Amino acid sequence: MKARVHVTLKPGVLDPQGTAIQGALDHLGFSGIENVRQGKLIELELAETDPARGRAVVEEMCRRLLANTVIENYAIEVTP
Amino acid sequence: MKARVHVTLKPGVLDPQGTAIQGALDHLGFSGIENVRQGKLIELELAETDPARGRAVVEEMCRRLLANTVIENYAIEVTP
Repeated sequence: MKARVHVTLKPGVLDPQGTAIQGALDHLGFSGIENVRQGKLIELELAETDPARGRAVVEEMCRRLLANTVIENYAIEVTP
Repeated sequence: MKARVHVTLKPGVLDPQGTAIQGALDHLGFSGIENVRQGKLIELELAETDPARGRAVVEEMCRRLLANTVIENYAIEVTP
């Protein structure tokens, strides 16, 4: 099965990368950009075939390694 | 409106970050991980309200700045 993890900074946490992207887009002439935030996308292929068990394992991976839960949120999508 | 861009390395392009994550997960005792790839997630808030026009603008942003189309693919999700 495949799992996709979105790791995003919590609201209120400064995001210098997002700010840099927004500045670069402004500079290129794109207007009407109100906010930009950059996060991480982690795609995993797992031998596990049970979606519920797979999600539980990925949840533990997020807590232990993939996300810094002090400043980041994570969301998991599982596809068989 | 909001737009979400997923930027991922094309298949076949080496992904040292993904390999490092896979190694770290193995080291923590997670087994059955067949592959890990790391990409970027960019979340934009735009003043534009028309989904079709918004998507076209974000598409141009991807081509000009957000993705390196030689080695990366991008996917755009637009929500009003």
